[in-house]
Amino acid sequence: MTRGPIRLAMVGGGPGAFIGPVHRMAAELDGRIRLVAGAFSRDAGRSAEAARAWGVRGYDDFAGLIAGEAARHDGAELVAVVTPNHLHFPVSAAALRAGLHVMSDKPATLNLAEARELAGIVAASGRLYGLTHTYTGYPMVREARAIVARGDLGRVRKIVVEYAQGWLSRTDDAAGWRADPTQSGAGGCIADIGVHAFNLAEFIGGAPVERLCADLAAVVPGRTLDDDCNVLLRFAGGARGVLIASQISAGARNGLRIQVFGEKGGLSWSHERHTELTIDWLDGPTHTLHAASGYLGDAARAASRIPTGHPEGFIEAFANLYRDMADAILEGRGDAGLVPGIAEGVRGMAFVETAVAASRDDAGWVSLDGSIA
Amino acid sequence: MTRGPIRLAMVGGGPGAFIGPVHRMAAELDGRIRLVAGAFSRDAGRSAEAARAWGVRGYDDFAGLIAGEAARHDGAELVAVVTPNHLHFPVSAAALRAGLHVMSDKPATLNLAEARELAGIVAASGRLYGLTHTYTGYPMVREARAIVARGDLGRVRKIVVEYAQGWLSRTDDAAGWRADPTQSGAGGCIADIGVHAFNLAEFIGGAPVERLCADLAAVVPGRTLDDDCNVLLRFAGGARGVLIASQISAGARNGLRIQVFGEKGGLSWSHERHTELTIDWLDGPTHTLHAASGYLGDAARAASRIPTGHPEGFIEAFANLYRDMADAILEGRGDAGLVPGIAEGVRGMAFVETAVAASRDDAGWVSLDGSIA
Amino acid sequence: MTRGPIRLAMVGGGPGAFIGPVHRMAAELDGRIRLVAGAFSRDAGRSAEAARAWGVRGYDDFAGLIAGEAARHDGAELVAVVTPNHLHFPVSAAALRAGLHVMSDKPATLNLAEARELAGIVAASGRLYGLTHTYTGYPMVREARAIVARGDLGRVRKIVVEYAQGWLSRTDDAAGWRADPTQSGAGGCIADIGVHAFNLAEFIGGAPVERLCADLAAVVPGRTLDDDCNVLLRFAGGARGVLIASQISAGARNGLRIQVFGEKGGLSWSHERHTELTIDWLDGPTHTLHAASGYLGDAARAASRIPTGHPEGFIEAFANLYRDMADAILEGRGDAGLVPGIAEGVRGMAFVETAVAASRDDAGWVSLDGSIA
Amino acid sequence: MTRGPIRLAMVGGGPGAFIGPVHRMAAELDGRIRLVAGAFSRDAGRSAEAARAWGVRGYDDFAGLIAGEAARHDGAELVAVVTPNHLHFPVSAAALRAGLHVMSDKPATLNLAEARELAGIVAASGRLYGLTHTYTGYPMVREARAIVARGDLGRVRKIVVEYAQGWLSRTDDAAGWRADPTQSGAGGCIADIGVHAFNLAEFIGGAPVERLCADLAAVVPGRTLDDDCNVLLRFAGGARGVLIASQISAGARNGLRIQVFGEKGGLSWSHERHTELTIDWLDGPTHTLHAASGYLGDAARAASRIPTGHPEGFIEAFANLYRDMADAILEGRGDAGLVPGIAEGVRGMAFVETAVAASRDDAGWVSLDGSIA
Repeated sequence: MTRGPIRLAMVGGGPGAFIGPVHRMAAELDGRIRLVAGAFSRDAGRSAEAARAWGVRGYDDFAGLIAGEAARHDGAELVAVVTPNHLHFPVSAAALRAGLHVMSDKPATLNLAEARELAGIVAASGRLYGLTHTYTGYPMVREARAIVARGDLGRVRKIVVEYAQGWLSRTDDAAGWRADPTQSGAGGCIADIGVHAFNLAEFIGGAPVERLCADLAAVVPGRTLDDDCNVLLRFAGGARGVLIASQISAGARNGLRIQVFGEKGGLSWSHERHTELTIDWLDGPTHTLHAASGYLGDAARAASRIPTGHPEGFIEAFANLYRDMADAILEGRGDAGLVPGIAEGVRGMAFVETAVAASRDDAGWVSLDGSIA
Repeated sequence: MTRGPIRLAMVGGGPGAFIGPVHRMAAELDGRIRLVAGAFSRDAGRSAEAARAWGVRGYDDFAGLIAGEAARHDGAELVAVVTPNHLHFPVSAAALRAGLHVMSDKPATLNLAEARELAGIVAASGRLYGLTHTYTGYPMVREARAIVARGDLGRVRKIVVEYAQGWLSRTDDAAGWRADPTQSGAGGCIADIGVHAFNLAEFIGGAPVERLCADLAAVVPGRTLDDDCNVLLRFAGGARGVLIASQISAGARNGLRIQVFGEKGGLSWSHERHTELTIDWLDGPTHTLHAASGYLGDAARAASRIPTGHPEGFIEAFANLYRDMADAILEGRGDAGLVPGIAEGVRGMAFVETAVAASRDDAGWVSLDGSIA
Repeated sequence: MTRGPIRLAMVGGGPGAFIGPVHRMAAELDGRIRLVAGAFSRDAGRSAEAARAWGVRGYDDFAGLIAGEAARHDGAELVAVVTPNHLHFPVSAAALRAGLHVMSDKPATLNLAEARELAGIVAASGRLYGLTHTYTGYPMVREARAIVARGDLGRVRKIVVEYAQGWLSRTDDAAGWRADPTQSGAGGCIADIGVHAFNLAEFIGGAPVERLCADLAAVVPGRTLDDDCNVLLRFAGGARGVLIASQISAGARNGLRIQVFGEKGGLSWSHERHTELTIDWLDGPTHTLHAASGYLGDAARAASRIPTGHPEGFIEAFANLYRDMADAILEGRGDAGLVPGIAEGVRGMAFVETAVAASRDDAGWVSLDGSIA
Repeated sequence: MTRGPIRLAMVGGGPGAFIGPVHRMAAELDGRIRLVAGAFSRDAGRSAEAARAWGVRGYDDFAGLIAGEAARHDGAELVAVVTPNHLHFPVSAAALRAGLHVMSDKPATLNLAEARELAGIVAASGRLYGLTHTYTGYPMVREARAIVARGDLGRVRKIVVEYAQGWLSRTDDAAGWRADPTQSGAGGCIADIGVHAFNLAEFIGGAPVERLCADLAAVVPGRTLDDDCNVLLRFAGGARGVLIASQISAGARNGLRIQVFGEKGGLSWSHERHTELTIDWLDGPTHTLHAASGYLGDAARAASRIPTGHPEGFIEAFANLYRDMADAILEGRGDAGLVPGIAEGVRGMAFVETAVAASRDDAGWVSLDGSIA
């Protein structure tokens, strides 16, 4: 007998925000998850208003939500954490402790210590924890990972990953809570988007970063946190890399691009053309693979809903993470497959803290310890 | 006081189909519409199964659905018609006559006579009728229309529209009901995708086609209906054009592309890069406009949900039609704005029949009468 | 023992012109040909000035040049014809009759009758005659031809060729002699660039056009000759096609693009990215081939001078025609391999005259007789 | 009275080499320079053979060439230095001391000490010295420089330059003399192509690099010199940057790309699409500028020979350097305008030595002293 869709509650992500509605649309897209409750805003009135608009149960704050939902027999099973960074830890921890699964926006926590603590809480809870590194949900990113993993390129020698945005090219008005270290953590751009680039390099390349040398700067006058990041990387196994993340690349929209070079060829993926994956071979024509094609591997094919040539997008990539999570919950599995989890969360926070430290006083090369404990 | 979401019933579009799930995802994406019922398949068992999976009321056939829903105080208000072409007319007509709004897949009907009859039914019903020419839902298509309409390019002189698919390059196995004239109508490729290209040329260019000269062929051996179409066009106002539609363009995925040339420059939009609109000016640098940018016109901006650089896709374009329809229903308006309606449906059927006739015996130039009555 | 470079004389093509200097640069690029004389302008003074600047023998007119050079033991062996169209025939004929080889700009002559007459003169002369359909000199165009010829795509089903320019979007000031039928012939755009597109379709596709249906227009007010051409094509063997050529595609620069669809896939080449050739396969990833790569066929590899990634361009493509011609002369061969000759010249003129006739009074489909006699 | 073309002699660059024929084609393309002599190979027989083939005076070695040509009243005025790196200094120095102008391939010399010594020789000679940083000859690179210089982007904040090749992805067979430090100098990839990227960043960005942090590696087993380089940069004025140069980016052809971000927008130029220059603005549509367009600045327009849409390429870019040099010689000017000279040569060598040193033992940040003395 089939059960109904998984019941979702959201903390944060009211209508005014960018990423909140994305979580809702993505979660519900495939009919496996249904929003039932939320504490959508720190402003209780606005939270109630959003709840009414979406026809779900509204709460004043996350503590009330978790208590209320955990007490219902038809309460939420999964909590989406869509708050400023400093609340990721307390909300995730409370939800897990109440026996709810968690899907959290990135970065996992405010700092590395919290991330490691959260890892312990996840392990103790027996519940699933997913981290929305959205780009891992794109079909061609999953195909890229599979291609590298099965050795088509030979040994990986070099990875270049760039994430260019321009929306913080002026003053801090646009940054909101991101400009406040007590809410966003020690990293600015490095924590907001650098951590996506870092995750993508490890997700596709398959090897962890071991050392780095970073040049982080607050370019826009008056800014406290970094808005521009250039980082040299060394991966386990010997590959080298470069990570560039910037929010003062004026004119850039959301330009995430990765190139992975192996002994036999190099693959490249760009968010601007996310339905394509290009492989330049040392000895033959360039291959371009297209999303939703029959010749792709299982992981990529499973990540498309409609035929090739009918582009899906950011919301659908996001939805793939929720769908994988839903399947894992429905099947009672202990992990959510390709969905990044707390291990990736810890590594991301280690990256942020290490890059910030490495950049201070031009410290040069430093080691990255991304171990969970 | 806000009312809840609009209640939707679907006819056709069970899980196995391509376009059925797209209708459901698109309709529900923005939270303004909720699926409540369906007659999802000609096979009553499969229909019931789909209804269970989606948690909605299931019906054996469309007559039962319309009767059943019309009788409920909480019954469906809007019917999505997602059947093979020959059922578009009877389902749409029955729904309208029962006081329900209709969103129909294209083409509007099996033939021109039916389309004109349906136009009368729509007019008499006082209900809204929308036709899912999906491509009109893309933000940059709407921007293109606005640019032409306000005369930025000067007088339009030439339009080239191409729609290339390759999936019918082999035998008819893939075509299914599309290969059967009693279900699909007199046109094959011309009715399946040519009509999209035709609609797009008129939607963006702003002038109706008046004459055409067509070369339609059934290229794959054994095929009855056309699978390749090349058509010369003359528009009211003097512009000339070319329409190319093919389902035997082997290797093509879903390559819809349009170029509109005026006195001062030419714009081009390609589905493969649907977030961009390019204008090549006679006297200056090429401009590329990006979806969700602040500098776009109202219609384009309203058609994006998330910030520039975060690509939306086919489902979101589709959802824009549903959202516009929902807004029109909620506001009690008599038309659904940019959503193609029965006038466009009649023109499309006139195009199909005229092109088929023009191609017979290499008839040369013929007039297109797309009047509603 | 090696002899020195082939001695070249030019008729027309003084410094002010576009295509004259291109002929000189292209002819001399590879060191196999050296300019020694010219009648560069109808203005004797300007001709003498150009001769001095380039350090070669100057003549007042082409008759004097041919007489003078033919009389010298070290006189020109090859004549480049770079005049307005109406002089192509008399200059080419005179040169051939004087025993000189000819490289002529296109179109071959002012009209079809002249072209057929010239074919007889070429045959009687025992000399080589080349026609600078420049685009056949591009490496990836030659690769495309080879791919089609060896059947990689299966049987050819469809060809779409577009040639879009915008420089005649305003009045006729820019057109110069091209606007005068006594100098340019009965065709405007169709003879200036349409004929290139026609040649390219036959060069790559490998089958002659047998029938066509044309819509030629003089769009810019006051213009006599066509500036916009849309043509439906039928090829021997059953393939269909579309040819679009326009000089009022405002904003277009020099956009020549061809797509050839066979049973197994489609290839496309665009002048804007001339170093690439793309093949979309029905059953696998898209392949992009790059000029000067080791995996290309002989004809393509021979058409590049420098390593892949170091783009050659229009002058080099032009130079490939001259180089092939030079090799044929040096080796005493009776033909110049891939260089278009008088047979292509006759076909081109037949295309121009047939398209002009077909367009008159919307005549519909007409046969194209491109036979030499 | 006009004099004839400038007389050129070449040292190195026989027919077998890549860059030798490019120098000859480029030098002669515009009719301002004519090759008259050469010592084309260390093998005297091969040198004589090349001289015969090109119909010029042949010499056994560069000393003989310089002595012989300097002694003739019609001897060479300009010497092209196209040898392995270790001969750049002695040949250039000898030519200058003999009163001949010099056009040298890059890098200027084997090391920084030589470069500074050569700077003194150039200054003392009163002759012109040009360095073939080819990419500065591309029209759109010159346009980029002009755009930055006149402040269209506001203050420059960030520069990312990448130069990716893959041809040294295997063993050293392909590298030839480049693998031998006594012939190539202390840098491998950094001296071969990194120096081009460095030059381009300074040429367009307009500010010198002051500090850098480098990670150079010899990735292919058995290789002595670096084949992969990742460098963080700090420019005078505060901009930051990243320079990536690699010859083990398997599958890459000759992928030079630069992005310059200012306060108001970012420009990007890629060698793969060298006729275009793209500017993404913070507040408006993306602009793409096309080579040979009337709206470009003087420097860019002067660097094209044929109309827009007719692509020139690598040879033509190279030819622009020779043409500028020829004009400077003909006009008796003391500098060759935009052609890189010995100051750029010294900076390039300083970059190579500094990057090699910075990379040793992961030294972190170091200063770059590119002063001439």
